[in-house]
Amino acid sequence: MSTILGENSYGKSENRVVRIVREGPTHHIKDLTVSIALSGDMDEVHYSGSNAGVLPTDTAKNTVYAFAKEHGIDSAEQFGMRLARHFVTSQPVLRRARVQIEEHAWERVGTTGPTRHSFVRSGRETRVCRIGYDGADWEIVSGLQDLSALNSTDSEFRGYVKDAYTTLEETSDRILATEISARWRYRWSRDGEPAPDWDRAYERARTNILGAFAGTYSRSLQQTLYAMGSHVIERSGGEVDEIRLSLPNKHHFLVDLTPFGLTNDHEVYLAADRPYGLIEATVLRAGAPARIPADLLRPR
Amino acid sequence: MSTILGENSYGKSENRVVRIVREGPTHHIKDLTVSIALSGDMDEVHYSGSNAGVLPTDTAKNTVYAFAKEHGIDSAEQFGMRLARHFVTSQPVLRRARVQIEEHAWERVGTTGPTRHSFVRSGRETRVCRIGYDGADWEIVSGLQDLSALNSTDSEFRGYVKDAYTTLEETSDRILATEISARWRYRWSRDGEPAPDWDRAYERARTNILGAFAGTYSRSLQQTLYAMGSHVIERSGGEVDEIRLSLPNKHHFLVDLTPFGLTNDHEVYLAADRPYGLIEATVLRAGAPARIPADLLRPR
Amino acid sequence: MSTILGENSYGKSENRVVRIVREGPTHHIKDLTVSIALSGDMDEVHYSGSNAGVLPTDTAKNTVYAFAKEHGIDSAEQFGMRLARHFVTSQPVLRRARVQIEEHAWERVGTTGPTRHSFVRSGRETRVCRIGYDGADWEIVSGLQDLSALNSTDSEFRGYVKDAYTTLEETSDRILATEISARWRYRWSRDGEPAPDWDRAYERARTNILGAFAGTYSRSLQQTLYAMGSHVIERSGGEVDEIRLSLPNKHHFLVDLTPFGLTNDHEVYLAADRPYGLIEATVLRAGAPARIPADLLRPR
Amino acid sequence: MSTILGENSYGKSENRVVRIVREGPTHHIKDLTVSIALSGDMDEVHYSGSNAGVLPTDTAKNTVYAFAKEHGIDSAEQFGMRLARHFVTSQPVLRRARVQIEEHAWERVGTTGPTRHSFVRSGRETRVCRIGYDGADWEIVSGLQDLSALNSTDSEFRGYVKDAYTTLEETSDRILATEISARWRYRWSRDGEPAPDWDRAYERARTNILGAFAGTYSRSLQQTLYAMGSHVIERSGGEVDEIRLSLPNKHHFLVDLTPFGLTNDHEVYLAADRPYGLIEATVLRAGAPARIPADLLRPR
Repeated sequence: MSTILGENSYGKSENRVVRIVREGPTHHIKDLTVSIALSGDMDEVHYSGSNAGVLPTDTAKNTVYAFAKEHGIDSAEQFGMRLARHFVTSQPVLRRARVQIEEHAWERVGTTGPTRHSFVRSGRETRVCRIGYDGADWEIVSGLQDLSALNSTDSEFRGYVKDAYTTLEETSDRILATEISARWRYRWSRDGEPAPDWDRAYERARTNILGAFAGTYSRSLQQTLYAMGSHVIERSGGEVDEIRLSLPNKHHFLVDLTPFGLTNDHEVYLAADRPYGLIEATVLRAGAPARIPADLLRPR
Repeated sequence: MSTILGENSYGKSENRVVRIVREGPTHHIKDLTVSIALSGDMDEVHYSGSNAGVLPTDTAKNTVYAFAKEHGIDSAEQFGMRLARHFVTSQPVLRRARVQIEEHAWERVGTTGPTRHSFVRSGRETRVCRIGYDGADWEIVSGLQDLSALNSTDSEFRGYVKDAYTTLEETSDRILATEISARWRYRWSRDGEPAPDWDRAYERARTNILGAFAGTYSRSLQQTLYAMGSHVIERSGGEVDEIRLSLPNKHHFLVDLTPFGLTNDHEVYLAADRPYGLIEATVLRAGAPARIPADLLRPR
Repeated sequence: MSTILGENSYGKSENRVVRIVREGPTHHIKDLTVSIALSGDMDEVHYSGSNAGVLPTDTAKNTVYAFAKEHGIDSAEQFGMRLARHFVTSQPVLRRARVQIEEHAWERVGTTGPTRHSFVRSGRETRVCRIGYDGADWEIVSGLQDLSALNSTDSEFRGYVKDAYTTLEETSDRILATEISARWRYRWSRDGEPAPDWDRAYERARTNILGAFAGTYSRSLQQTLYAMGSHVIERSGGEVDEIRLSLPNKHHFLVDLTPFGLTNDHEVYLAADRPYGLIEATVLRAGAPARIPADLLRPR
Repeated sequence: MSTILGENSYGKSENRVVRIVREGPTHHIKDLTVSIALSGDMDEVHYSGSNAGVLPTDTAKNTVYAFAKEHGIDSAEQFGMRLARHFVTSQPVLRRARVQIEEHAWERVGTTGPTRHSFVRSGRETRVCRIGYDGADWEIVSGLQDLSALNSTDSEFRGYVKDAYTTLEETSDRILATEISARWRYRWSRDGEPAPDWDRAYERARTNILGAFAGTYSRSLQQTLYAMGSHVIERSGGEVDEIRLSLPNKHHFLVDLTPFGLTNDHEVYLAADRPYGLIEATVLRAGAPARIPADLLRPR
């Protein structure tokens, strides 16, 4: 055989599950998109098509809905861990499971009456996580996707390299706008050790990312990125070891209004779509390994 | 000539303009996508290609940015009116202008320091308006797009017609979820008459729509739609004459868990994408004309 | 009652149906997205929520699949007509039906063996139609969506109006690029009269649109639009009475390479996304009524 | 310092460049979206914001357009290589460049006259490549994105594992449909060695992928994936060492028509959107290293 099978996985992607919990007239809602990817001893199904070791992806889907009932959904991370553990421990042929979840947030609509079962979709960013399990170690990567942020000043871009193709003029005052995609990896990896409070850890990371964005006088988007990443790690109470950020530089060009006899004193900008700058980097706790793949997160 | 020109317009669509106002350390932001469509005596450019009566669409774009500087952006409606008036009154060949605007909302990021120039994109729905002007009368249609709302109970669907192709079972308790698109037309149409406060009117309409959604025990999505529409008109202080709503019925199917020995007591739902029900209707103040085109709003 | 119900419809949108016909080892495929909108005496369901006159949208969905089996799918238009007739004639409360269909084209993958059951999705544009029926008259509007076309020369833009906001320079040679959306209305409206061959009529219209695009030396995109529309009507064998076109002007800007000591002789262009020009018009056979709504087609 | 910088890159993404070549009345077109990512000694800009070693992303954009003029665009791969070599060899601080290109295909519109400058966008899949260069070695990964393919028979799914959550019934005849995303890595990596003909190699890989799809009697999508991958490598004339494929299983469910007294003999299917199966794997020439990241390609 001149070719061989390399890294592979299979599963069911984008299972849309909504879980309602009724507490008298007050309802609670969890709304997730769950994707399951399973790996193990899968040579045979690739080489001959034999499904003797294949648990159907349809079964993975059923398990998502059954577990939502049997165990409820506390956090996305805990729900994903429960699923990952199930697949790896219940089928000998399955050695590794990866569960990716997007959480769609809802907030309550204020009503005057006693019932509380009405919601509107909140926020614009999506909370995500990716759970990896191999029967021994866990890898919990949480994050957020597409959080648009903008500073209307306190950003400059100067002192850069000029070559024969450089026409950009330096600026000491620009809009800095981006759509933040971030993934951070928790140090926790073993059953028995105390695990983070996933919801609180998410809120803390989000707050630190936005705090660094708002609080940094930015000489470059790289500097802002590093500030975001180091804040998340340093203020995680030791829980986060690594973070990767992908920051498109959503250019806002100061419009030249002089043809119309007008002065544009940092007031009117054109928000451009493409091309965009793209700044991507990993920030690590000193001594921690780099495990988040560079290609995991991207602007859409 | 065996063919003739019918209704036509031309212009520049999706001009992305951001306007910053600095009030000491506190900045304010308006972020709009502005589309201009112009009509008038345009036979010649269609028949022969002569541009003698054509103001370039590039000029329409320039005007958007210049006006953002010269006049600022109060509300989307006022900015659109200023543009529409300019085109119709400054070029004899232009008889009608239509300005459509999407407003992208930002909210402040809390910081501890004195500066206030950091923002995150807020909410999920988009506020929109469409300004029509013919030199005499105004037609102001405002609205919102893609506001996701969900009731986890107080919705039923029973007592409907059954034919040979009906398999649906009646239900007295279901999730009712939709993505609300709405456009309402203001009665105001003439300079000199007192105009609404556009921002306050928008907030009031949005509140009334969500209030009707949350407050209606729903026997059908049509009933909920009519409640939304009539609330907006009746509680508009006489300002709104007409509203059109397009409500996809985002089906949430109760998952059958009996194969797994589990009872699903309105707890676990599958959120489906396609197909979806689609309920569309206009609600009118008694005696008011219907002017919002049925095809203006659609789910994407 | 201070508010009343205006125009309204309900139905099931985006039913995805694939129909396979086996002719020995040769298979044929039809792949449609079908949307049903029904209207009639629907006051009660809006005012009180009573579903006594409501055929469920779920039944509309079932009917699509059952009819694909019972009657097969010849053309999208014929399939849509069959569905529209069924709803209007089988339920007294339903007075009008509107069926919108998108057809997804597949072409065969060449194989060496005898079997012919492999396909790849072809083309980029989508063929669409919209069938209206009120129990007496038909309105058949067919069209295409998002057909990207580009001329690399034989387009100019000169002799236009200049005002205080005009900075655009005239050009005698530019790229003209657009994404064509078109809807044409057939004259045929009555059972008993000979109907067009829908597939052949579609191909003819598409050919005429592209022929006019390629064959017109363009002084304005309006001129090209009118050429497209008049060709479709005039070369339809009397079958088409009206056509509406929506043509975004997908700007391709000649890049200024002089800072790099290079001359750009209509060789290198930047393809821009937003803003874009938007040219929309209806072309009519002289004497024919205008019935295609202006808001029916739009760039996405 | 408790945190440190890990893997990082910066650049300009999605530069839209169109290059026209005029050969008398016959024009040729290349339409690319080019993304540049640069890496090197970038600690300082992240830690302090100093741009002393940063070539602006705006300069990367300018270089794309200037090179399109200076050197023309032969294939996407050659154009990307030229750019990558430039950045790495002209700026000491830059050690590695990665250039990703999407190519948008156009085909000629047939005209009767002598001019040949009219085009329509062809096909649905996008040809892509990713060029990596570190000053010594090249890594050329080419591929295709979103090629929809469907077999209407010769696919079964049987003999799989059943557990307590399995409800799927076995089938010996189903539709197999997918949207193929593939990336293959060429063995070539050194200047001086004879390089592939990139256009011919692309066509050959595409043909082999579709040939394997159409020619495989499929017991599982994994089997079909492996056949695709091994065909590409084995029939590459030794040029391809590795391929990664991501195949969503686009489920087509046989509709149950028995409630309507109809038998559905593999004729009418519902094409589902979500969830979908997802089969991903790398196929390697025996002995070759695995270098294509697992997260590089995904369905959208």
